[in-house]
Amino acid sequence: MTYCVGMLLESGLVFASDSRTNAGVDHIATFRKMTVYEKPGDRVLVMMAAGNLSITQGVVNLLDEDPAAEIGRETIWSVPSLFAAARLVGSALRKIYEIDGGYLKQHGEEFNASIILGGQIRGEQPRLFNIYSAGNFIEATPETPYFQIGEIKYGKPIIDRLITRGSTLEEGARCALLSFDSTIRSNISVGLPIDLLCYERDRLRVDVRQSIDHKDPYFNEIKRRWAEGLRETFSRLPAPYWEKKLGSI
Amino acid sequence: MTYCVGMLLESGLVFASDSRTNAGVDHIATFRKMTVYEKPGDRVLVMMAAGNLSITQGVVNLLDEDPAAEIGRETIWSVPSLFAAARLVGSALRKIYEIDGGYLKQHGEEFNASIILGGQIRGEQPRLFNIYSAGNFIEATPETPYFQIGEIKYGKPIIDRLITRGSTLEEGARCALLSFDSTIRSNISVGLPIDLLCYERDRLRVDVRQSIDHKDPYFNEIKRRWAEGLRETFSRLPAPYWEKKLGSI
Repeated sequence: MTYCVGMLLESGLVFASDSRTNAGVDHIATFRKMTVYEKPGDRVLVMMAAGNLSITQGVVNLLDEDPAAEIGRETIWSVPSLFAAARLVGSALRKIYEIDGGYLKQHGEEFNASIILGGQIRGEQPRLFNIYSAGNFIEATPETPYFQIGEIKYGKPIIDRLITRGSTLEEGARCALLSFDSTIRSNISVGLPIDLLCYERDRLRVDVRQSIDHKDPYFNEIKRRWAEGLRETFSRLPAPYWEKKLGSI
Repeated sequence: MTYCVGMLLESGLVFASDSRTNAGVDHIATFRKMTVYEKPGDRVLVMMAAGNLSITQGVVNLLDEDPAAEIGRETIWSVPSLFAAARLVGSALRKIYEIDGGYLKQHGEEFNASIILGGQIRGEQPRLFNIYSAGNFIEATPETPYFQIGEIKYGKPIIDRLITRGSTLEEGARCALLSFDSTIRSNISVGLPIDLLCYERDRLRVDVRQSIDHKDPYFNEIKRRWAEGLRETFSRLPAPYWEKKLGSI
């Protein structure tokens, strides 16, 4: 399994991905799910992938081929917009489906892959896309400023509660880390290190990219303080009006 | 979908279930998922069910038949132990499978049902079971004092963080309500009212049973205070050591 989250905020973009891959619980390995395409002053594109690792690695390899004649005349380094980049990634998924889809089916495997792609290309606003197995995709809008892929449920409530389009990059990053903490506690197939990338609007370069493992002092401190704060908030909640019926023996 | 949670605490048992059933998003209805078998001074058994409603209603009906010759000589009112009650419920599931399983399969439907059964029978400790579609089951132990069925993921982290075997009934009930709040925010197929039942160890009767809807003042107050407390805790967390790299233009 995998967990990735991407946020499109007024101030820029936040990306976070775990790095555990498993083919059964007895076959666990570490693979990074985040790929960064950076050409300072021109473009920053960040791609995170969940699903069948052979598919998502295939997509990354097709995108790296130059010229990527198999999937179009443009490459990820030359496309003029994020929309065109998302179409390119979709085309790469369709190409891998053409190559492997039938064989996977023969072996009872679904063609399962989902991708978050976001960033900024000079002349455009920052944008964020969620690309599906079929190569189609949707774009984040102000009402829904984030996408998750993979094991999304455990870490969703905290983002829903805390993040809006107006949150700062630092708040987005902090909330993403807490969302990972909730997920990692509940699902052993999501694991450290977390790759975290913050992209500040209009910078057209990456300033913050961190790999966060179990020794990271900041991650450990906010985990601890968050847990304490929740317990404290919980203990201060009022007793229910029907409490008097309890302990009445 | 459905969400139910049962907790086995030193002080007793907490049960909570939602009441939304859907066959597609255009076919939503309200059905209670909790059934209570109470014979004051002798036994309190509480059953909550998730999955295909025709299966779980079938189980309830078979258990109500007296004598339930189809599933055994004992009934839910006469079994001498919770273990025997769990076997009886498992037998009822197997009987429904015998009747409907093949037909469901013909229509591409899985035989999908899971049940939480807990309570106390005179002469025994309080116990809690999780019964699967196949009629087999597991029992809660001190290390894992709760079971969830249905849409379990959104509301799991909060229980993992706050509840231990030593929590009070009131804490268990409060945490269950917050777990429902997180779930209902994220999944529209889980809905109010919540049926909440607290059973105090060795009482052998039900003292607290509440139906909690959107007008419930206590539920609304703890929801509000919890949300405020989370936001406050979040805003007090320290800034990351790499924050200085942000906003450095």
